[in-house]
Parts: sequence; structure tokens; C-alpha cells
Amino acid sequence: MSKRESKASGPDPSTETGAREGASEKAEERVRESFAKQGIMKLLGAEVVEVAEGRCVIEVPYSDELTQQQRYFHGAVAGAIGDSAGGYAALTLAPPDREVLTVEYKVNFLAPAWGERLVARGEVITAGGRLIVCKAEVVAISAEGEETYCAALQQTVATTPAEA
Amino acid sequence: MSKRESKASGPDPSTETGAREGASEKAEERVRESFAKQGIMKLLGAEVVEVAEGRCVIEVPYSDELTQQQRYFHGAVAGAIGDSAGGYAALTLAPPDREVLTVEYKVNFLAPAWGERLVARGEVITAGGRLIVCKAEVVAISAEGEETYCAALQQTVATTPAEA
Amino acid sequence: MSKRESKASGPDPSTETGAREGASEKAEERVRESFAKQGIMKLLGAEVVEVAEGRCVIEVPYSDELTQQQRYFHGAVAGAIGDSAGGYAALTLAPPDREVLTVEYKVNFLAPAWGERLVARGEVITAGGRLIVCKAEVVAISAEGEETYCAALQQTVATTPAEA
Amino acid sequence: MSKRESKASGPDPSTETGAREGASEKAEERVRESFAKQGIMKLLGAEVVEVAEGRCVIEVPYSDELTQQQRYFHGAVAGAIGDSAGGYAALTLAPPDREVLTVEYKVNFLAPAWGERLVARGEVITAGGRLIVCKAEVVAISAEGEETYCAALQQTVATTPAEA
Repeated sequence: MSKRESKASGPDPSTETGAREGASEKAEERVRESFAKQGIMKLLGAEVVEVAEGRCVIEVPYSDELTQQQRYFHGAVAGAIGDSAGGYAALTLAPPDREVLTVEYKVNFLAPAWGERLVARGEVITAGGRLIVCKAEVVAISAEGEETYCAALQQTVATTPAEA
Repeated sequence: MSKRESKASGPDPSTETGAREGASEKAEERVRESFAKQGIMKLLGAEVVEVAEGRCVIEVPYSDELTQQQRYFHGAVAGAIGDSAGGYAALTLAPPDREVLTVEYKVNFLAPAWGERLVARGEVITAGGRLIVCKAEVVAISAEGEETYCAALQQTVATTPAEA
Repeated sequence: MSKRESKASGPDPSTETGAREGASEKAEERVRESFAKQGIMKLLGAEVVEVAEGRCVIEVPYSDELTQQQRYFHGAVAGAIGDSAGGYAALTLAPPDREVLTVEYKVNFLAPAWGERLVARGEVITAGGRLIVCKAEVVAISAEGEETYCAALQQTVATTPAEA
Repeated sequence: MSKRESKASGPDPSTETGAREGASEKAEERVRESFAKQGIMKLLGAEVVEVAEGRCVIEVPYSDELTQQQRYFHGAVAGAIGDSAGGYAALTLAPPDREVLTVEYKVNFLAPAWGERLVARGEVITAGGRLIVCKAEVVAISAEGEETYCAALQQTVATTPAEA
């Protein structure tokens, strides 16, 4: 049986790989569902471009509406997608009956955010039952594909009982 | 002579009070000018509602476009106006030939941001020649005028040579 | 019965004031008991000089052993007593069957810490069931009693089940 | 052959590798010289165990004097050596006529610090002329050599004119 057919018939929870894939798909579904409900992410034009266990990447294309006074991406955009990328990375490791909530984050701005797109790569550092610590790097990517490291974020996320 | 006429003829730099008022007006002008150039602040619907020496208050009315998945104000909005309120508080104390730039900030989310308006009150803690440390509190205000303390932000701002 | 007699015979839990005083004494006892077990606080020569509900003040006298390369108090000392002052402020508001643990803190160094004593004043900003957010200011006090504001700290503390 | 002669015939500063090695030795010398002047590092029993360009590792052996109430290493020790490891990593990249100063740091405590030694690995994220952003990870190492990731630190360092 080919890999594709196997996938078409769904992950087999009896094998470890299958279970992991299933968990990962579930996590991606949770992330995309929650993300779609966030008015602010739509307003910013942000999109989830990757979800994996303990990892989430969010991207936003350049627009004049996202700038600070010198036409770079505003730090608020880096903060917003960095925080979200970290938070959703945490969600992928949270128990299924729990949601996540950012407790706090700290962000350093490293370079002017100049580019066609701003990309935030969130990653879990350590995951406990109640608290998950994450980091995110935010890079600006030029038309030529060159990356500039713009912001580094370190974050604490709490798991909370999901609302009924 | 009415207050208005007095103002029309401008503050008198020969008196200390006049000089201070002049400095303060200048600071407010700088803040409003810079703020007006920030695409993101317009997108969020944010407004500067108060500027004083070492202090700046920024406000944003509720809108469905500013929400997270449970219809509260998204933390990104609190972060954005908190960072700006702190940064502009710093600008009021920066030398006239200098601009300011957020080096980093840290924000704790204290309560769900539910209300008609979200208000960030930025304040300078200490101002050096090159670095200014600020804090900002972000409160949500209900239709009845009740305040909820939603976010506490601590921030480092650098002064930079203004662009030619 | 006079207030004093009432106090002499111990706090009366049937009156609000009595109950609060009792709670406060209990909190102070908890703080001092935990503090006494911390090897590092002894090593630094630190002392608890005040405990109240949601507040704790810790002090350390100057010594050559606490310095950085220019003979000021080392930032590590400010960080250590600032973190402790915040954490113990949190402990005064934690449920009796719970301990506290610093999740994270952020500290800005504002001025060289030069003086006879270094004093950290910790205070609770908001207290939830599981998480308590605190701040602490650290001041250096000269022989003449002049204060220099040296460090500002913002902190997240978690309550944890006390060990059996 | 004496050490001095060996050095004379040593790395040739006219080749890039030689220049770099020379720069690196100089950096290590600067770090060790500054470190030796810090009373607090001696008090904690801390040692510099590695210096490279943009990197510094500091270690402290376990002692009862470095504990919190449950006999783990106190968070203050992790904060102290993490801050120092980051700061000295920054110093290795600072211009020769400049010193460094921690502007601020943020630290997340990830796990109880239980082990024979506590090790902080500091690293520069980005280095500008005036500001250098660093991170440090602090691990506890057991007698068996097992590592526990205990604390993650993100830090801003300023370069300052060296004192005369």
C-alpha cells in the first residue's frame, strides 16, 4: 500500500507514527480554527503558514497600513504576530480540553523591519501542565528572499480550561 | 485678555512657566506629528488623547476588528498602544534634535480586555541621554466608565539622531 | 472592651479588622520562615524589613563582596532582592495551603547602585488564583539617607501546592 | 621556549585567522580581568569556563549557601550568572575602548535547578554600536552529567565609554 493511500484512509492510531500525524493534524485544525476567529489577525492580513508540534509560523505581507513613521513595519505588527506564533506553538502541545492564554511576553527589536513580508516563527522552549514557555523570532523578507532578523520574543503562556 | 488671545500671541520664553508651556506644546506637536504618520495607529483607530512632559495617553475604541477569539480586545492592541504610549512619553523628554525608538518592552496581561475603549497611559520612569525607561498601564473602560486594569508594560527606549 | 484588650487576647476572627490583622501576622510568619531557609539570602546578608498584605521590603547592607567591577552593588544583588521582595509580596496573598514560585521577571537597571544599603520594595499588582503579577523597585540609600532609584522589576509568580 | 617567545612567534596578525585569534585572546583577557574584579562572582564561587567571540560560559558549583527554601539553586544564582554570561559575551564584541553595562534582562525559570553545577551559556544575538542583544541559557548538571534546562534569559547590553 502506498503512503498516499494510507493517508487517504486516515492515520492509523495503532501505529506511533500514525498517532503522531493524527495529533499534529488535530493541532493544526485547532490553531487554524482559533486563528480564524481573531478579528485583529484579519485586520493585519496575517496568515498561518505552518503548524507543527511545538511550532507555528505566521506571516503578514507589507502594506502601508502596517507602518510606523518611517514606512517600516511597525513594531506592533512584529509584537502581534510574534506573540501569536508563540501562543499557537504552545496550543499544539496543550491538552485537548484546554485553551491557551498569553501571560506575558518580552520583545527586543533588533533591526528595522523592512521587506515584502514579516514572518514570525514561534517555538515551544518547555511545556508544563499549566505553563508553557515559548520564543519567537520575527524576520523581514525582501523581494529577493533576503532575511533580516527584526525581533526576538520570549513568552509565558498559561493553559486554561476551555470555555463550555 | 482672554486665554485664547494670550495663546495666540505665544508663550513668553522669558518666564520659566512660559518656557515650560512652550516646551510642552512643542512636545505635543512632535508627538501628534509622528503619530499621524503611523499607518498602524490609523488602522487600529487609535488616538492620542493626552500629552504632557514625560506622559502620553493613547486610546482606541472597541471594534470587532480588534478582537481575539473570545471577542475581547486582542492582546496585540494592548501591546501596540502601550508601547506607543510609553514611546511617546519618552519623546516628550528627548532632546529636540533626536527621535526615539523602542529597544524592547515586556508586557503582562492582567485581565481580559473587555470594554468600550482601551486606554494606554505611558509614563517615563527615568530619562538618560541615550536611554529612557518607561512604563505603561493599559485599562479597558466600560460604557459605565468602570476601569479594568488589563496590561502592565515596562519598556526601554533609545534616543537616536533624527533623520535628515 | 477596648481595642487593646481585644488585641492582647489575640485577634478576634469575628471582626473584619481582627481577621485581617491575624491574616497579616500569619503572612509575615510565612515570609520570615521561608526566608530563613534561603541560603543565598544569608550569604548576601539580606533581611526582611517589612511585610504587609501584598507588600514586602528586603534590605541588604553594602559589602565589598556584593560588588561589580566598579565597586557599586552588582546588578545580581538588585535582581536577587527585587525578585524576592516581589515573590514574598505575592506569598502574603497566596492561599494558606499554597507556596509561590517565580515564573519569570524582567528588570531594568536605572542607575549605578551606590550606597550604604540596597532596598527592594515588592508589591502585588494583581493576584489571581494561580498567577500573581508583582513589581519591585530597588533603591540605593546613602549614609545621608538619600535614595537613588536603581532598578525596576516586573514579575510573574505562580502559586503551587505546598510540598507535603 | 618561554611562553612569551612562543607568543611572539605565534599567530601572525597579518593573516585573517591570526588576527581573529589575537582578537579572541584579547577578548578573553578583558573578560577575565573584569570578572576578577566582581566581588559577587567570588562570593558565589562562579568561574568563567569559556570565552569566544560573542560567547561566554560561566559556572558555579553547588553549595548550601546558594539555595532557596527547598535546597535547589536559588533563582538569583541563575539570574546572576545568566546576566554575567550574556554581558561578557557582549563584551567580546564591544569596541576595545568601550565597556558594557546591562540595560535590562528578562528571565524565565523553566525547571528546578538541581545538580552539582549550574552553568550559564551566554551568546550575542545581534551587536550594534551602542546596544547589544544577548541570550543565555542556564542548565543544571548532575553528578552523572545529565543536563536540566533551568532558565532562559534575554538581555539588552549597552556599550559605554570606558572609565579613565
